[in-house]
Amino acid sequence: MEKYADIIKIIQNNFNTLSKGQKLIAEYIMNNYDKAAFMTAAKLGETVGVSESTVVRFANTLGYDGYKELQKELQELIRNKLTTVQRISLSKDFSDYENTIKQVIKKDIDNIEKTLKEIDYHAFKEAVEITLEADNIYILGLRSSSFLAGYLGFYLNFLLDNVKVISFGPNDIFEQLLRSTKDDVIIGISYPRYSKRTLEALNYGKEKGCKIIGITDSLVSPAAQYADVTLIASSNMLSFVDSLVAPMSLINAFIVALGMEKKEDITVYFEDLERIWKEQSVYDTNNKNNNSKD
Amino acid sequence: MEKYADIIKIIQNNFNTLSKGQKLIAEYIMNNYDKAAFMTAAKLGETVGVSESTVVRFANTLGYDGYKELQKELQELIRNKLTTVQRISLSKDFSDYENTIKQVIKKDIDNIEKTLKEIDYHAFKEAVEITLEADNIYILGLRSSSFLAGYLGFYLNFLLDNVKVISFGPNDIFEQLLRSTKDDVIIGISYPRYSKRTLEALNYGKEKGCKIIGITDSLVSPAAQYADVTLIASSNMLSFVDSLVAPMSLINAFIVALGMEKKEDITVYFEDLERIWKEQSVYDTNNKNNNSKD
Amino acid sequence: MEKYADIIKIIQNNFNTLSKGQKLIAEYIMNNYDKAAFMTAAKLGETVGVSESTVVRFANTLGYDGYKELQKELQELIRNKLTTVQRISLSKDFSDYENTIKQVIKKDIDNIEKTLKEIDYHAFKEAVEITLEADNIYILGLRSSSFLAGYLGFYLNFLLDNVKVISFGPNDIFEQLLRSTKDDVIIGISYPRYSKRTLEALNYGKEKGCKIIGITDSLVSPAAQYADVTLIASSNMLSFVDSLVAPMSLINAFIVALGMEKKEDITVYFEDLERIWKEQSVYDTNNKNNNSKD
Amino acid sequence: MEKYADIIKIIQNNFNTLSKGQKLIAEYIMNNYDKAAFMTAAKLGETVGVSESTVVRFANTLGYDGYKELQKELQELIRNKLTTVQRISLSKDFSDYENTIKQVIKKDIDNIEKTLKEIDYHAFKEAVEITLEADNIYILGLRSSSFLAGYLGFYLNFLLDNVKVISFGPNDIFEQLLRSTKDDVIIGISYPRYSKRTLEALNYGKEKGCKIIGITDSLVSPAAQYADVTLIASSNMLSFVDSLVAPMSLINAFIVALGMEKKEDITVYFEDLERIWKEQSVYDTNNKNNNSKD
Repeated sequence: MEKYADIIKIIQNNFNTLSKGQKLIAEYIMNNYDKAAFMTAAKLGETVGVSESTVVRFANTLGYDGYKELQKELQELIRNKLTTVQRISLSKDFSDYENTIKQVIKKDIDNIEKTLKEIDYHAFKEAVEITLEADNIYILGLRSSSFLAGYLGFYLNFLLDNVKVISFGPNDIFEQLLRSTKDDVIIGISYPRYSKRTLEALNYGKEKGCKIIGITDSLVSPAAQYADVTLIASSNMLSFVDSLVAPMSLINAFIVALGMEKKEDITVYFEDLERIWKEQSVYDTNNKNNNSKD
Repeated sequence: MEKYADIIKIIQNNFNTLSKGQKLIAEYIMNNYDKAAFMTAAKLGETVGVSESTVVRFANTLGYDGYKELQKELQELIRNKLTTVQRISLSKDFSDYENTIKQVIKKDIDNIEKTLKEIDYHAFKEAVEITLEADNIYILGLRSSSFLAGYLGFYLNFLLDNVKVISFGPNDIFEQLLRSTKDDVIIGISYPRYSKRTLEALNYGKEKGCKIIGITDSLVSPAAQYADVTLIASSNMLSFVDSLVAPMSLINAFIVALGMEKKEDITVYFEDLERIWKEQSVYDTNNKNNNSKD
Repeated sequence: MEKYADIIKIIQNNFNTLSKGQKLIAEYIMNNYDKAAFMTAAKLGETVGVSESTVVRFANTLGYDGYKELQKELQELIRNKLTTVQRISLSKDFSDYENTIKQVIKKDIDNIEKTLKEIDYHAFKEAVEITLEADNIYILGLRSSSFLAGYLGFYLNFLLDNVKVISFGPNDIFEQLLRSTKDDVIIGISYPRYSKRTLEALNYGKEKGCKIIGITDSLVSPAAQYADVTLIASSNMLSFVDSLVAPMSLINAFIVALGMEKKEDITVYFEDLERIWKEQSVYDTNNKNNNSKD
Repeated sequence: MEKYADIIKIIQNNFNTLSKGQKLIAEYIMNNYDKAAFMTAAKLGETVGVSESTVVRFANTLGYDGYKELQKELQELIRNKLTTVQRISLSKDFSDYENTIKQVIKKDIDNIEKTLKEIDYHAFKEAVEITLEADNIYILGLRSSSFLAGYLGFYLNFLLDNVKVISFGPNDIFEQLLRSTKDDVIIGISYPRYSKRTLEALNYGKEKGCKIIGITDSLVSPAAQYADVTLIASSNMLSFVDSLVAPMSLINAFIVALGMEKKEDITVYFEDLERIWKEQSVYDTNNKNNNSKD
């Protein structure tokens, strides 16, 4: 989907320079990429009323070697929207045990590298500033993203007051946002297959005037739609699992960046915490090699 | 610490070929690495009663260019045991904003690459088999590891019956393991600064005869002590954050590997789930490009 | 609503003895009590096509002094379905501070007394037997009932294996019931304003063949519809709070009844627990009077 | 234990009027009630160095018919401190099924009636005021009391901003109180066998200067020690279950009292909530009698 984000950006950036016929193709793709992804160049041309060669030139203009290449990226976007059953059947080629493990982990490395390469430092800085200035910081992630939300909340609780992790519970998510205002920020974490409740809650927060930071997989994700600032980290599709490794790495960077801004404050709190952790025996303090136990 | 795991393995693998004096050094290091890490070669030799040159040859025998190199790895192990306040002050060099983000994410990539390089496929296979054969599967991770435990449980619940995530709650963790038996497995996730309750719970489970799979950062981690099978994924220390990116990637591979073994069963359940998800509007189903909203 | 339960029971018990005209009234009320509750005897008669005096005799036949009395009970049933805003405005008469507190607590006493008076010991015994025989025991309560579900689960975990409290979380409630079968029981706790998800989940469980024990406020509650056995405890409406005091008392009785059947087993477990609680310092063990501290 | 609270109060109120010998008895009992509870009048006299008849007159002075009566109340206090195994064996007389249920529920009625009779309206009013004036409201209850804490939090979230329920989780309870100050209040709910962590957390909050409202079973409970204001509701001991029915009734009254003070504000929020509940289908809206389903 991140690549598709590039297509969209490229199309938007180049839109004014496109020929009239190419503009028709551009618009059709933006509105119907799920159909376009499976059309030949000839069929796509026919559909929007231009020649096949106009379609090929359109792909070239956007920097692709040919229409096939452009089409492949559209298809990848759609893969992210497949149902889980469709995805399990796609994973049939994971036949060899050792290879599977390697593929899964390598795909995670690719995703983090991609995330690093495409990181928008300006957006990152803005997200840090919005978070530090907010009266209340709501962290929202549901389904598998709830673990990222919890992880982010776990560490932000050491840095900042008024951090609230929004999750499914006795009070529903809207009730938890009931008193949010324009002085608050919602950090919304949303990955394919985007939880509908997350999107509804972001919409509700937006109506109340909250600032919204989206952590998601592309600028065209439905979550990005609601965000004032969007931080992008790639996710991938591993059979029925949505790997959230690259998002977790991005979140680490976000926590460390916030920590840098609060360094003086937090040292005091952590001294207090170290004392508590010791009193409560929270951590293992057996400093000796375990073989030496005797 | 992962490197230290190598030292330990190397020492163990080479122990029989060591000279008598070298064996003394080997034993001292395994029992007192926290002290050895800060001794010169001369001091270490003196302490165990051998010459300085025996210490240097010991390092060479294990494949290190010199004693310094070996010592550096011992020191890295100890870094993982620093208090948070000590770690925040170590992070002072994270001065430039953009660099910080890059460093954090690159460190995560390094960790996953290291994890991939050192993966023990035999242990992995054994862990999958133990899990599939168990009557009950308890997943245990506390503190920051609780999010990995929750994430693993979230997906295993789709594959397997009798998966129970153990977490702090009204019933304490021992109560949640009260009825565990030798036919059960505990998957214990434990990263520095190892939660003491996790270790106590693994010990309790071991006493009851449970099989134990450890997911941790080295073979010398206190969690590995209790484990029948240990899966290693590196963690790193980012200021006050313990990055759990590589462990999450390992867990992804573990879930996919389990899923491969249960492919036929789960397709049925996922068809049921897709129906429910649709009825309950769990996921966003707006298949159209968001720009096309009209 | 509990009183309405009586009406329904009375109507059902007496249905065969009613005159033809009275049967028309009976059927209309059962299907449209929300309208009937606000009709005069004349209007009700007109609506179903009988005389006003038939309506009055209908009330007498069922044991009411007059139509007014019957109508009052229908209206009370409807109060339980009011929106919260309507209920807050009804609570305007809670003007005096001390009186309010007394009213709230006295209402709770009334509810428990009513619950005790109307308890169905046969249903109770059946509920205990179904629970003891089940392969898996799912406890389901959402919104304010989630605390009763958690409370019941907290104690049943000491008595029984395979007790699972179903609650909102990363995995939704249907996913948590995905593998339930006809050998399982769902204990569903549902009070006005009945959570829709609870009812949907009970319906889903019923489709899978699960036995269902309902803990609810009347035999005509929507939860009772799905239940094989229904345990009734009254709730009341206190401004925007739904008092769950009588249901908690009923649940206490249910736990104690289950404990009686498992007395031998649990003593062993509790001895183990006492040891853990002591080792982990779970409970205060300062046996001395606190005034003596010095 | 509540009765014992009376003894303590009576002793304190009458202390100055006691004879010198009676004062020795009073002090001994306050410091060693667990031993005194099982001494005969003669033995108690011997222990503190007074005559048996002084002991009897001491009981009479405090309003008891005799020493037996006073002793019985001391013994009841101690029952609350029994281990669970001891309590299960005490419950052996719960032999008849129907009787058990009746006993359990009747005991709950007794407890609420006792709670109502002894309620301290002045303390109640003070608790409401402290809560309304606090910057942050922390609600703390662990083990079985966690369900009362959750229940109280569930409703206070509708009335007030900055309500935080403290519970066991990835961040421990001390971390959750890390930033509490003298402008905050902790509402601590603690019932026998008093959770040690709850008491430690109340102590930690008190050190930070927080106001503390205790909801507990007597003025001599260890939780009352830390409290600025104590609200008393009786609990009882049912085999291995600690009935929390009377505390829940008290909490209902507390919520309603708070709601009265915020009536204007909350109506607006509840109108917003009603809209959300409708949009999200939170509650069952089938207004028709369920028998009419066809």
